[in-house]
Amino acid sequence: MKAVIITIGDELLIGQTIDTNSSWIGAELSKLGFDVHCIVSVHDRREDILSTLQEVLGKADVALITGGLGPTSDDITKPTLCEFFNTKLVLNNEVLKMIEEMMTRRNIPMNENNRKQAEVPESCRVIKNARGTAPGMWFEKDGTIFISMPGVPYEMKYMMTEYVLPGLKQFFTSQIIIHKNIMVYGISESNLAEILTDFEKGLPKNIKLAYLPSLGVIKLRLTGTDVNYGELQKDINNKVSELYEAIPQFIYGEDEDALEKCVGDLLRSKKQTVCSAESCTGGNIASLITGIPGCSDYFKGSVVAYANSAKSGILGIPKELISRHGAVSMEVVSKMAENTRKIFGTDYCIATSGIAGPGGGTDTKPVGLAWLAVSSRTGVIAEQIISGTDRHTNIQRFSFAALNLLRKQILNS
Amino acid sequence: MKAVIITIGDELLIGQTIDTNSSWIGAELSKLGFDVHCIVSVHDRREDILSTLQEVLGKADVALITGGLGPTSDDITKPTLCEFFNTKLVLNNEVLKMIEEMMTRRNIPMNENNRKQAEVPESCRVIKNARGTAPGMWFEKDGTIFISMPGVPYEMKYMMTEYVLPGLKQFFTSQIIIHKNIMVYGISESNLAEILTDFEKGLPKNIKLAYLPSLGVIKLRLTGTDVNYGELQKDINNKVSELYEAIPQFIYGEDEDALEKCVGDLLRSKKQTVCSAESCTGGNIASLITGIPGCSDYFKGSVVAYANSAKSGILGIPKELISRHGAVSMEVVSKMAENTRKIFGTDYCIATSGIAGPGGGTDTKPVGLAWLAVSSRTGVIAEQIISGTDRHTNIQRFSFAALNLLRKQILNS
Repeated sequence: MKAVIITIGDELLIGQTIDTNSSWIGAELSKLGFDVHCIVSVHDRREDILSTLQEVLGKADVALITGGLGPTSDDITKPTLCEFFNTKLVLNNEVLKMIEEMMTRRNIPMNENNRKQAEVPESCRVIKNARGTAPGMWFEKDGTIFISMPGVPYEMKYMMTEYVLPGLKQFFTSQIIIHKNIMVYGISESNLAEILTDFEKGLPKNIKLAYLPSLGVIKLRLTGTDVNYGELQKDINNKVSELYEAIPQFIYGEDEDALEKCVGDLLRSKKQTVCSAESCTGGNIASLITGIPGCSDYFKGSVVAYANSAKSGILGIPKELISRHGAVSMEVVSKMAENTRKIFGTDYCIATSGIAGPGGGTDTKPVGLAWLAVSSRTGVIAEQIISGTDRHTNIQRFSFAALNLLRKQILNS
Repeated sequence: MKAVIITIGDELLIGQTIDTNSSWIGAELSKLGFDVHCIVSVHDRREDILSTLQEVLGKADVALITGGLGPTSDDITKPTLCEFFNTKLVLNNEVLKMIEEMMTRRNIPMNENNRKQAEVPESCRVIKNARGTAPGMWFEKDGTIFISMPGVPYEMKYMMTEYVLPGLKQFFTSQIIIHKNIMVYGISESNLAEILTDFEKGLPKNIKLAYLPSLGVIKLRLTGTDVNYGELQKDINNKVSELYEAIPQFIYGEDEDALEKCVGDLLRSKKQTVCSAESCTGGNIASLITGIPGCSDYFKGSVVAYANSAKSGILGIPKELISRHGAVSMEVVSKMAENTRKIFGTDYCIATSGIAGPGGGTDTKPVGLAWLAVSSRTGVIAEQIISGTDRHTNIQRFSFAALNLLRKQILNS
């Protein structure tokens, strides 16, 4: 099964926006067993869109299209699709109602542009958009399915997950493919590959292993193909068990689980609570934890003590401790964890203090260095981490390392 | 002048890697005045690469190609280019010397694969790679320049900056293209389009306007083309002034500026400071602010008071105020802003309290509702916002709205 991804938008070609949609769609289509033949990005230009559609017609089984569906005049995908499929725009009352409801909820008055978004090509199947005002469209022509979606990632992902992927799955009877992800943290990719050499050699031909690393987290993905679902599931399960035997200390979760979600689940299962005291991570740990629905079961809050005055004033870190060891030190970060845990009255507290960069580094404490601590009722553990020079990467790496330190502490207690 | 970007690699199509090269190359080519006609990503497959090259031949002025130049067997770009340009691989001693020196420096023994990397197509101009082992290649055929570079961004960018962009500049006397972004917040895309109807009608043919919305922020992009740089710059500047006259209250910045950066710059210019008291945004506002290097000039810290016990215990919100009005209320969020500003001793404090969802909503206080407040030395202002049902979107929208409330307050003070 051959698929093509077409992304439309001037902003992609002049480098103002990085196309993250293609990558996400590519991954999802691959899971369904599609061969994504190519990704093409073109301008919001009638002739370019038409020629790209023409090239795909009858050659690919599916063409997934994003972008150019907004309410403004530079968004021309919809009229161009009408031209290509030889149809015309008609007002869809159901879509109009959804848009009206959305605008009312957001307290924004309806105007002519919004009304226009409820006009859809007569020959298409409408895909409802619960997250925005532009509906998606499903066309079929000469053996190719064309699906047009908004370019806004969270609207597109909703449509894909709710309608498009299930729809494609139903349309194509495909070979059985099972993916299973094992989430790993705390080991480098090359060391992991070394440990798993024998495991990889022992894999049957129909099961493949991929390493997908991102900021210290490694997703190990097993992909199996077969005609018999039960057999394949059993084989995959056996291989997963082997992984748990080979690297138990590094596996923190399965599937797409985020580290902060697994740590949260652990806390909930033990009826324990956590808070954080953040300097260099600037609220990112709290933000990661509170990104998970239901986190109020175990998360009480955080103090982002960015300025040293906040560290001493709010968290009660003695000024002389900071001046003796520096804010980025085992002593200060341990005290931050200890004091903040008492302030919030939680079972654990995560604390961070480091140099995220690009400025602020010294010879002995370079950019990328951070001290992390976790305090609990039984004491404090602290750990140093050395990351790189990019501010955002450092903040993310520090946060994950701190969450993993908490995870280990919970498991050891 | 027409350019095409071709990125080669299985990892791009199955979603393992987001193609950031195209975006970077697109931006650089646009600055030189090229119209990047399309971006195509294809597999490491001989026939796919050949057909893509064939399609471009004689039609584009330049094709920039990245990927598939590594030392392993799945990298087939080089032999495929030889086939396309009807030439053969020859050992280049200068390249070999560079590779040997690099391997010695990195303390890695040379092997047959590394030696192979010094083989280049006989008919190409070699582009040296000071950052890696794979050389770049410059071909010309039927009026099209083809340039092949490694896919590793750090190596590709070096080659582009040092050789390719200066080379292209010399080769083509280019038309001038100027892009200018105006960053807007606080109005919906459709309402903005309505206000700007006359502005759009008044644009000359060589200047275009695009709306690029994302979570409440709208990037308005003016793109002008001309042969005279000075004239075009003047015309664009005039149009920018017209925008400032038409929607002064909604423009927060220019170019790629993030809202949190512009607010930070404002604070720095006024030598003022800020802190935050976050409930529903869970540290995201602090995280956004501390994502900006140098934020310690104006940001002191944050209290993420997620649990009500933290609101009363740490921030001193009277329990009876919470029980009378609920945590999500004008009264509580105003008090949070007021008290936290005093705790940190800052000029301003941003506070948020709302229901991010998916759970926790009621009939009167549905998911997506939040109260925002900003306190200053002169008092507190509070505002209600209604967003949607997606947790992450809500948190981001609440955060931007709160930052914008702060921005307005700073400007009004």
